[in-house]
Amino acid sequence: MTDRPRVAVIGAGISGLTAGKMLGDYDVPYTTFEMSDRIGGNWAFGNPNGRSSAYRSLHIDTSKHRLSFKDFPIPEDYPEFPHHSDIKAYLDAYADTFGLLEHIEFNNGVVHARRNSGGGWQIDDQAGSTLQFDMLVVANGHHWDARWPDFPGTFTGQAIHSHYYIDPQTPAELTGKRILVVGLGNSAADITVELSSRALQNRVTLSTRSSAWIVPKYIAGRPGDKLFRTTPYLPLSWQRKAVQVLMPLMGTDPRLYGLPEPNHKLFEAHPTQSVELPLRLGSGDVIPKPNVSLLDGDVVHFEDGTSDVFDAIIYATGYNITFPFFDPDLISAPGNQIRLYKRMFKPGFNDLAFVGFAQAVPTLFPFVECQARLLAAYAVGRYALPSVAEMERVIDSDQQLHTGHCTDRPRHTQQVDYFYYEHDIRARELPAGIKRANARTAESVRV
Amino acid sequence: MTDRPRVAVIGAGISGLTAGKMLGDYDVPYTTFEMSDRIGGNWAFGNPNGRSSAYRSLHIDTSKHRLSFKDFPIPEDYPEFPHHSDIKAYLDAYADTFGLLEHIEFNNGVVHARRNSGGGWQIDDQAGSTLQFDMLVVANGHHWDARWPDFPGTFTGQAIHSHYYIDPQTPAELTGKRILVVGLGNSAADITVELSSRALQNRVTLSTRSSAWIVPKYIAGRPGDKLFRTTPYLPLSWQRKAVQVLMPLMGTDPRLYGLPEPNHKLFEAHPTQSVELPLRLGSGDVIPKPNVSLLDGDVVHFEDGTSDVFDAIIYATGYNITFPFFDPDLISAPGNQIRLYKRMFKPGFNDLAFVGFAQAVPTLFPFVECQARLLAAYAVGRYALPSVAEMERVIDSDQQLHTGHCTDRPRHTQQVDYFYYEHDIRARELPAGIKRANARTAESVRV
Repeated sequence: MTDRPRVAVIGAGISGLTAGKMLGDYDVPYTTFEMSDRIGGNWAFGNPNGRSSAYRSLHIDTSKHRLSFKDFPIPEDYPEFPHHSDIKAYLDAYADTFGLLEHIEFNNGVVHARRNSGGGWQIDDQAGSTLQFDMLVVANGHHWDARWPDFPGTFTGQAIHSHYYIDPQTPAELTGKRILVVGLGNSAADITVELSSRALQNRVTLSTRSSAWIVPKYIAGRPGDKLFRTTPYLPLSWQRKAVQVLMPLMGTDPRLYGLPEPNHKLFEAHPTQSVELPLRLGSGDVIPKPNVSLLDGDVVHFEDGTSDVFDAIIYATGYNITFPFFDPDLISAPGNQIRLYKRMFKPGFNDLAFVGFAQAVPTLFPFVECQARLLAAYAVGRYALPSVAEMERVIDSDQQLHTGHCTDRPRHTQQVDYFYYEHDIRARELPAGIKRANARTAESVRV
Repeated sequence: MTDRPRVAVIGAGISGLTAGKMLGDYDVPYTTFEMSDRIGGNWAFGNPNGRSSAYRSLHIDTSKHRLSFKDFPIPEDYPEFPHHSDIKAYLDAYADTFGLLEHIEFNNGVVHARRNSGGGWQIDDQAGSTLQFDMLVVANGHHWDARWPDFPGTFTGQAIHSHYYIDPQTPAELTGKRILVVGLGNSAADITVELSSRALQNRVTLSTRSSAWIVPKYIAGRPGDKLFRTTPYLPLSWQRKAVQVLMPLMGTDPRLYGLPEPNHKLFEAHPTQSVELPLRLGSGDVIPKPNVSLLDGDVVHFEDGTSDVFDAIIYATGYNITFPFFDPDLISAPGNQIRLYKRMFKPGFNDLAFVGFAQAVPTLFPFVECQARLLAAYAVGRYALPSVAEMERVIDSDQQLHTGHCTDRPRHTQQVDYFYYEHDIRARELPAGIKRANARTAESVRV
């Protein structure tokens, strides 16, 4: 490949933006299709495309030090844990600095993407055009299609998924109410804390199935994630073990606050970051409960045999990975499972790449930047993929490395340790792929 | 004294209640005068007597383990950090269990207390009666007379003292506003956290003069005050030093979050307990500022030369010690200074006792119970005071012990280490006073 392929990018959130930036750096012609009138995806609070899950009070759970793109340092005067409006401003500055906006077709998402029999993609856009591209980059995000649990029975009160939660007045007046929050991820913790403020006069109950370890955002007055990070030079399993021994000092065990025992060890799944939730539980402002066993009108039964009456349930139960523009037979992710080489390439599809489909720990920002770098190298032919068989083998071993220890839940299928991943791509995968690319070029020259 | 004195108690908050309970235990006849229609004083949220400073979301800053009266264990099913409504219920149960209500004249405070020339007190009550008592117990509290700072200039926006703050809607609509909170005590921290919730869309600034060390309520998932307590068997100054060395591990230094350096060492003054305030500062939700230098219309100038426009100022600047029923010439506490032997007895007044006039660390609850025990022993003549000269000497040395290290601020004049105080009363002062009482009885028998 010496000619640059024409690339279509789906989505202008952090994944689509970094993909565009890197493709531009390598002079690859590309068009980004964005349903919305703005960039930022999930981080564009109130995004008219309906794809933002940000609530009004959302702050990122990763400190600015870990969050920063390598190519575009986060402003030094930012707070340690930026608000969603800070993140949006950072992404706006990123897009502006690298001239990304001119590549984006706003209010024009991809309706349908068909693969040509000879390779390449035919795309129907919202504007009604049908267009041809050599390569497709899927960057439509995985935090927008609300996943609802399938509890037996029916709840007759108000049911709201956290995706739609904005603040205690929106989308419903949640004051003076009996509220059940289901889930124990970061959204569940934040929403529980917000709604359990005594000023709102709610009675808030928190129910969790898998439970979760609770890690403070601050340790010794500094962002916790500045103190701990994995190193690619020691086995991940050893590092998890060390942290599992040390972290009880931080009060991470949810049983301290009346919540169920986690069904996994610390850092085997993404921990929940909250300094406020333990306090609310310990102050009697939040009533801890195990999993829901039955919905019965306005009564909810729990697995410990207790039950209570509720006006509203907030389901902070996560998201599905969904590709509305693909025929499900071609590509889909049932149970949030999708087999991708280095979380990017689907074996057998050499004209397709995914960016941002991981639950990267500690954060997605430098992770998608790392993926975008590999994408661009691939697009210009500097990096080549291994054989399909080799890819399938590596997918299995990578999955074992990153999530083999995890519980088999849709939430955790995508977990990736960023530091390990980044080192793997930079120090092993990219050099190996360059070697493969050079060998093929030499071969084709000989032929 | 073999005949029991007739005692008047002013106030039915925790100090008046424990005083009544102990007087009753010793069969001392007493009447408690209470302005309100209910017991609980400060802990009766919305108390019609106007003497409660509780806001809707107030939780006590001491864990239930430290809070419990020795004579009436706090219910085991209480949350670690009880809400004000839990405290009120606990006090109701206390009053009910020990039959205290029948001694209380509700809606009938003391208007004026005059000392008879020959000893004893003449009291005018709200009902219009004038009554004679042999002894007076002052238990009217010291957290109700709002202290306002005397900044130069005039602020034309809304000024509210924390005493009157109830919630973000009461007494003023504090949403979408530019708000300055002045102070860094527990109320300042709580109110700052509550008003800076992004859901309320305020812009909140926090200004402090003295600054304060910020101690988490939870350490390693357990109430912090369960892990640390002073022992009476080591000098307090050594213990303060040890904690000053250890506590930086907990992120106690306000400079970590942009606040000024405290003008005192850790635990030299009552630290501020908050796990949420550092997070809000670190998330950019609260803007830290040093002391106010000038009020100018809707502009507030700070000592670092910066200034900003505000709609409202919340003064969380503490309280005056006030005795509205005494002629100021007889007894008053200018600058919150009042010389009391063991914080209870005014030298020269053998028919007067004060209960609850201390900023006891960690909490006032077992402290007033301890004082009430000494009070009852004194009332029945089992415990005798030393000479006035000796009392004056001990007042100085006790003040040196408990607050000699402190900054000279009205807030800190009353600081007392409870564990030290309790041990002093139980193991030294009470036995010594019993010896004095016995010696005098022997003397009077000989005469």
